[in-house]
Amino acid sequence: MRLSRHPERAAYDRATIDAILDEGLVGHVGLESAGQPYVLPMLYARDGDQLYLHGSPVSRLLGALSEGVRICFTVTLLDGLVLARSAFRHSLNYRSVVVLGAGRAVRDRHEKLDALRAIVDHAFPGRSDLVRGPSEPELKVTEVVALDLEHASAKARTGPPADKPGDYAIAVWAGELPLGLLVCAPIPDSRCSAPEPPELRSYRRGAA
Amino acid sequence: MRLSRHPERAAYDRATIDAILDEGLVGHVGLESAGQPYVLPMLYARDGDQLYLHGSPVSRLLGALSEGVRICFTVTLLDGLVLARSAFRHSLNYRSVVVLGAGRAVRDRHEKLDALRAIVDHAFPGRSDLVRGPSEPELKVTEVVALDLEHASAKARTGPPADKPGDYAIAVWAGELPLGLLVCAPIPDSRCSAPEPPELRSYRRGAA
Repeated sequence: MRLSRHPERAAYDRATIDAILDEGLVGHVGLESAGQPYVLPMLYARDGDQLYLHGSPVSRLLGALSEGVRICFTVTLLDGLVLARSAFRHSLNYRSVVVLGAGRAVRDRHEKLDALRAIVDHAFPGRSDLVRGPSEPELKVTEVVALDLEHASAKARTGPPADKPGDYAIAVWAGELPLGLLVCAPIPDSRCSAPEPPELRSYRRGAA
Repeated sequence: MRLSRHPERAAYDRATIDAILDEGLVGHVGLESAGQPYVLPMLYARDGDQLYLHGSPVSRLLGALSEGVRICFTVTLLDGLVLARSAFRHSLNYRSVVVLGAGRAVRDRHEKLDALRAIVDHAFPGRSDLVRGPSEPELKVTEVVALDLEHASAKARTGPPADKPGDYAIAVWAGELPLGLLVCAPIPDSRCSAPEPPELRSYRRGAA
């Protein structure tokens, strides 16, 4: 999809696309069923040029995804509010990726195990090595769907508001209010006796 | 839509739905065009039982929205990572709302102006009173679409991981890593001479 609005904000290079996908934690998958589109949040991971989603095979969503219907997967990073001098020029700073394609049900055992590891490690790097991996019954009730990144595009807005020349005389504060992901203090569950790993306190998404 | 997976996580009461919509900053709209679904991030606002979106009438997206095609609008709040003792039980704490319906192009001048004020004030409360409102040419190039909240549902996961009984013996840290919206120091643009309002430093979403 070539994005027709604000073409100056679009990018199609894989480095830009990969960086946004790798920083995001949750994406939104869209698909149509019986004339009604649905948009649902999902965890995911990227491995090379494949995007992996997972869920229960009995869910309507994953069932449809694995049948090869056309889907859209969008990841949006909110970078800030753009506060302008006119209502019209208010905007958001953001980076987003839109991936179009048809889902492919992952049947190969090795690819499926790798994808499930990637999804856990995407949310929390290195976590797969520390926890129990999927049992056979768990594998059976987990559907993994791959989406090729061939038809992916990125879009971003950065920087200060772009006010109309005549509006700069308006005496109101204008600029950016940067936003990001807040990581709070970890909460061990009531049966946790293992020490808190330092990676919990240093958890961040992206380069920052 | 009755959500078939994890029905214990679903809610249909308006108070729950409204609180999530009001805390969210950006939603994802999904619609189908020529057999391909699209999912795109958008600012929005809720006013009573109406959800308002806006954009350029020449964009393919807003054009389709205002023609009354079926759409889905989803708002997701990320509340935390759920780190379990097995890969399979890893999860997210989140609150989300899914609104299904058909867009209605807002033609009434008063409703349109009110909706545009609501969208600015949703992003930054009280901002509409401080900035220049839309001019006639600006109004002309802004399309506002309303979506009724009649078919909205909320879904949430909260709390610690739910590990398999046998897995509690695994000596790994397990619990929640709470996440939220990080608000950083405001950046005035290079032509801003107005003082920084205190609301910039105290900006928060939701009750927290």
